Amino acid sequence: MPDSLLARLAQQIEFIAECDRLKEVFRQTLNTHSRRAENDAEHSWHLCLCVIVLAEHANVRSLDVLRVLKMLIVHDLVEIDAGDTFAYDTAAMADQHAREAVAAERIFGLLPADQAREFRGLWDEFEAKATPEAKFATAVDRFQPMLLNCRSQGAAWQRHGVTHDRIVARNRHIADGCDPLWRYAEKMLQEIVDAGHLAPRA
Amino acid sequence: MPDSLLARLAQQIEFIAECDRLKEVFRQTLNTHSRRAENDAEHSWHLCLCVIVLAEHANVRSLDVLRVLKMLIVHDLVEIDAGDTFAYDTAAMADQHAREAVAAERIFGLLPADQAREFRGLWDEFEAKATPEAKFATAVDRFQPMLLNCRSQGAAWQRHGVTHDRIVARNRHIADGCDPLWRYAEKMLQEIVDAGHLAPRA
Repeated sequence: MPDSLLARLAQQIEFIAECDRLKEVFRQTLNTHSRRAENDAEHSWHLCLCVIVLAEHANVRSLDVLRVLKMLIVHDLVEIDAGDTFAYDTAAMADQHAREAVAAERIFGLLPADQAREFRGLWDEFEAKATPEAKFATAVDRFQPMLLNCRSQGAAWQRHGVTHDRIVARNRHIADGCDPLWRYAEKMLQEIVDAGHLAPRA
Repeated sequence: MPDSLLARLAQQIEFIAECDRLKEVFRQTLNTHSRRAENDAEHSWHLCLCVIVLAEHANVRSLDVLRVLKMLIVHDLVEIDAGDTFAYDTAAMADQHAREAVAAERIFGLLPADQAREFRGLWDEFEAKATPEAKFATAVDRFQPMLLNCRSQGAAWQRHGVTHDRIVARNRHIADGCDPLWRYAEKMLQEIVDAGHLAPRA
């Protein structure tokens, strides 16, 4: 193995080792069985599972599933430095992208330059939400926490005083990537409201 | 949305919700920062990251990366029912495949029939370790726990009395899927032996 190849491989493995930290970034969502906080690594895996199960329902027929998976595998790595920002924390969300962009420089910058550009491109594409792949990735990224919350009787939403109207306003663009998933989500949310686990409005 | 499509989507989402249990299946490997046991969902994500970073080093040039990722996303789902089997627990490994095959019937059987067949096929392919994709998936599945163990001063190996010679015997077929990765691993293991964190033999 040439020295240059070995050095490249060693650099890539340092990146992989550093990314082990994603398992220690905890979210507001609770896992449904243990009711402990979900971490970003588990969340990222669960999104990948959603993609391979649900890709057939995407709004476009020609979805590049590999690209969606790549985006979701790396989409939360910036939170190793920037931390998780709760979707309904308006103050923290104001500077979220700026904080995460600094993190992206450092974390993707651990990779060899060509791969750093590729991974940064995946993250930028995810953030811009313009391509069909980014829209579908965003749809599952928004749907999965709602699913866990609904299967936990709305525990995380209740803790933060989040109401049905805010959830709908924040998540309705799931329909931009996967219309059937948003229709399913609307029914799922209404059932939690009807069961008394989620307040309709503030 | 036709009723049949809605029923299919609802069935798929029940599968996704059931798979949330993978986050509660804990392994012998420790995460490097918290030193708590890694769970299967985190592990599966970390393997996906390994794939998209390291695919260029696969022994074959025409690797189907999407297929490798699909295999790794689902490869541990059987452990929801069958539990994690420690790689150096010879007794538990004797009936591992039989226990896991029963689990595969139930868990993949939650999906619509066509998708159940597809996912079961991915798991069977992974288990058979015959295709280049399964060999590469196996290579990262074997490498990642070694990396975490080496970055934890061999803690999990020491706890179970696992020695360098057994690790080499069990993991050398990493070279069948990714020769450079096995060469890197050999050096990494030797460094841990030299540092006194891993016994050469029993």
